[in-house]
Amino acid sequence: MTIQLYDLTGKDQARPFSPHCWKVKLALAHKGLDFESVPTSFLDVPKVENGFGKIVPVVRDGDKIISDSFQIALYLEETYPDRPTLFGGQGGIAHAKFVESWALTTLHSQVAVVAVEEICAMLDSADQDYFRTSRENMFKKTLEQVSEGKSAVIAGLPEKLKPLSHMLNSQKFIGGDQPLFADYIVFGALQWARISSATQMLPEGDVVTDWFNRCLDLHDGIGRSVSSAAE
Amino acid sequence: MTIQLYDLTGKDQARPFSPHCWKVKLALAHKGLDFESVPTSFLDVPKVENGFGKIVPVVRDGDKIISDSFQIALYLEETYPDRPTLFGGQGGIAHAKFVESWALTTLHSQVAVVAVEEICAMLDSADQDYFRTSRENMFKKTLEQVSEGKSAVIAGLPEKLKPLSHMLNSQKFIGGDQPLFADYIVFGALQWARISSATQMLPEGDVVTDWFNRCLDLHDGIGRSVSSAAE
Repeated sequence: MTIQLYDLTGKDQARPFSPHCWKVKLALAHKGLDFESVPTSFLDVPKVENGFGKIVPVVRDGDKIISDSFQIALYLEETYPDRPTLFGGQGGIAHAKFVESWALTTLHSQVAVVAVEEICAMLDSADQDYFRTSRENMFKKTLEQVSEGKSAVIAGLPEKLKPLSHMLNSQKFIGGDQPLFADYIVFGALQWARISSATQMLPEGDVVTDWFNRCLDLHDGIGRSVSSAAE
Repeated sequence: MTIQLYDLTGKDQARPFSPHCWKVKLALAHKGLDFESVPTSFLDVPKVENGFGKIVPVVRDGDKIISDSFQIALYLEETYPDRPTLFGGQGGIAHAKFVESWALTTLHSQVAVVAVEEICAMLDSADQDYFRTSRENMFKKTLEQVSEGKSAVIAGLPEKLKPLSHMLNSQKFIGGDQPLFADYIVFGALQWARISSATQMLPEGDVVTDWFNRCLDLHDGIGRSVSSAAE
């Protein structure tokens, strides 16, 4: 049976934007596994698989249901060991947690500032109410006030990306010559920005931009299957 | 023959302080390899092994000479595969380059601001001249002007350490349950601070401080063999 991925979408179900769901899509493609996306709104998330999790992504593989992108990647690695590895061994798994922490603490808040109003506009009206209330509680600001930080975020991004840009001077991917799940972790954050926001976050001609484009090309260009919001 | 490590020191040869040499000492101890340190001043570095490298650490293992801490760790992993692993596989090696880039671009400049005057004071007078001139050229400021940034660095450090502190909520070491070379990469930067500067950089009771203390305890407390500059 084809693997099912519950994938966060707005009004346009053909434009899934969740960073965590994108990580899983790349991981599934990396393993060469067929899957189908089940478009899921914010308000539908708690109903997924009879309330299995409070978050997406959720994956159903036969009678197995798994949530959380990292847990899903671990499940795929363990269940499909003969397919290309997502971690390159135990050290890769442990260190990928550091990459995840870096992306969550350094990039996600930056993308949120840039894209939050545009994400809200992508949702249907019931989701918009939920999203605005929950995010304004989280930021303790209106979405419009959050957006005021946009130009500071763009100006500060090269500094925040330095760990990645410095590393890319000596290797092609975080995984080395080939991508691993750690690449998809960081890709997810920037793909979320690419699909949600018309603002160009990555500077032209930068090593990180080149790496991001390499990631967009992977696995028959699955990352390009959704166009940029700037197009 | 015992492995020799050319190890950067100042006037007191019993207080080696280089972050990169500390990474290698922990890596050698991790592999359970005996080694002797060869105290080396800044001005002696270019003369090491008849001018082998421009940097320390340099390691001599029989007729092999290797420089650069990451290259040395790779050499040890390849040459002593039956000893405890430093990387946990190919993914661990690739991802450790990301951790190295993070430490170099995020932590090293911060430690330099806090410790640069105290490091200079640790050196003999010929090294002091070299160090002051080269570092003032690098910073385009006097060492005293660099030090003016100290309190801003201390205030900003918890934010810079977030990728590590966030990860430490879910695992004990960057290597997982046990340390790997990636831990020693970050440890090196903070050990450099601990030995050079009386300023307490890490906040008391923080998860990063707890992790750093765990690292100091490793391998018969090799990290504690040199006392803190604050003691």
